[in-house]
Amino acid sequence: MSGRLFGLGVGPGDPELITMKAHRILTAAPVVAYPAPDTGDSFARSIVAAYLTGSQVEIPIVVPMRVERFPAAEVYDKASAEIAAHLDAGRDVAVLCEGDPFFYGSFMYLFERLGQRYSTEIVPGVSSLMASASALKRPLAARNDVLTVVPGTMPDAELEQRIAGADAVAIMKVGRHLPRVRALIERMGVMGAAGYCERVSLEEEKILPLESVTAHAAPYFSMILIYKGGEEWIRTLPFGGDADAG
Amino acid sequence: MSGRLFGLGVGPGDPELITMKAHRILTAAPVVAYPAPDTGDSFARSIVAAYLTGSQVEIPIVVPMRVERFPAAEVYDKASAEIAAHLDAGRDVAVLCEGDPFFYGSFMYLFERLGQRYSTEIVPGVSSLMASASALKRPLAARNDVLTVVPGTMPDAELEQRIAGADAVAIMKVGRHLPRVRALIERMGVMGAAGYCERVSLEEEKILPLESVTAHAAPYFSMILIYKGGEEWIRTLPFGGDADAG
Repeated sequence: MSGRLFGLGVGPGDPELITMKAHRILTAAPVVAYPAPDTGDSFARSIVAAYLTGSQVEIPIVVPMRVERFPAAEVYDKASAEIAAHLDAGRDVAVLCEGDPFFYGSFMYLFERLGQRYSTEIVPGVSSLMASASALKRPLAARNDVLTVVPGTMPDAELEQRIAGADAVAIMKVGRHLPRVRALIERMGVMGAAGYCERVSLEEEKILPLESVTAHAAPYFSMILIYKGGEEWIRTLPFGGDADAG
Repeated sequence: MSGRLFGLGVGPGDPELITMKAHRILTAAPVVAYPAPDTGDSFARSIVAAYLTGSQVEIPIVVPMRVERFPAAEVYDKASAEIAAHLDAGRDVAVLCEGDPFFYGSFMYLFERLGQRYSTEIVPGVSSLMASASALKRPLAARNDVLTVVPGTMPDAELEQRIAGADAVAIMKVGRHLPRVRALIERMGVMGAAGYCERVSLEEEKILPLESVTAHAAPYFSMILIYKGGEEWIRTLPFGGDADAG
């Protein structure tokens, strides 16, 4: 009998923000796979490092971090073949996914290759979207709000239209687009509604009003949340804490 | 010293989809509050029932379920006063929140009243949004997709515009609007891209292509996900499982 493939959401970074289900499956799996940069540690692995048993086979899926167009098909074909060999031998494989597996995650590339061939279960995780709202201490969306999630890579004209047309906006993948996106938000007059969140739930997390952010680039794990909905009191909340700390 | 207020995301329904952090705080809190209907059990409480210690003070926040406009201010004023009395006496209070506390949740009404007066921490949870994508076995959003979350109460013209203008759409609060929303999706020619998810992660969960749903109303805990993005292979996935089961 073939092993089972698990896509495990391990949450935004704090090891305690993993679900009990992901923890159970992770600690029972003989094989653990995870995305890893070509230099340095795997973030997904670092989140659950304390839970690994020490006797698990590990499969790092090496994804070059500084290359815009890396040979994705090649990388995931190779990783899928390696994972499939374990599944064929009857061993369960747990794939670690930062945040949630199906919310803009790379797990889908393995799922594309293996999901129809093997018994597969996706274990949802706490997304950085929700974790950022919690850290900013502002509801992400309320009542009948329209929430839109967009990439920071989007050109100004479309981004402006998206921000104007929603009650709540999450801008992901801000990166080097930070100064441009920040300037657009300022121009649109919604700076007061915008919070900035970096490396949420980790010790080095940064939670700031966007207007206090002066950096020229944001790290990969960062997000801007804008609340423009009908709840007046939400728009006046200090970002990340009590009014004194605001 | 005052007690601390916790907004605990307890996930979509499966007790194992609670985070280890929420579990730790929940089992240590002397006081536990949760939304409850005027008749029947509290869903949030039922999720964590097995984790309650038996010696905790419980505060059900009774919200009439079948009334469109219930006296919300009165209900949350009263609950806040009761919670504040425990906090003033130095007792921590854990408020249970279905899914994630700040993703369209009612915790915000308590946070509005208590969040600035008391030391407050929000513990993010697994949202039904991510849990539904996991159960449907389709990525929610990929790469640079625009994802929009809308309420099913939205009138047809606006809903049509929202669906047309996004790569991925989540329609929440479908309820009695199901036949209308379903008809709109059919008219727009995106029925094949639409999955339906009901009571996700519970034993009685229903995972179906929307076109197979014939009910006249959806329960409160249901969602429609539409994937229209650029990834062709995602659009051909069977909903909820392997091709044979699809």
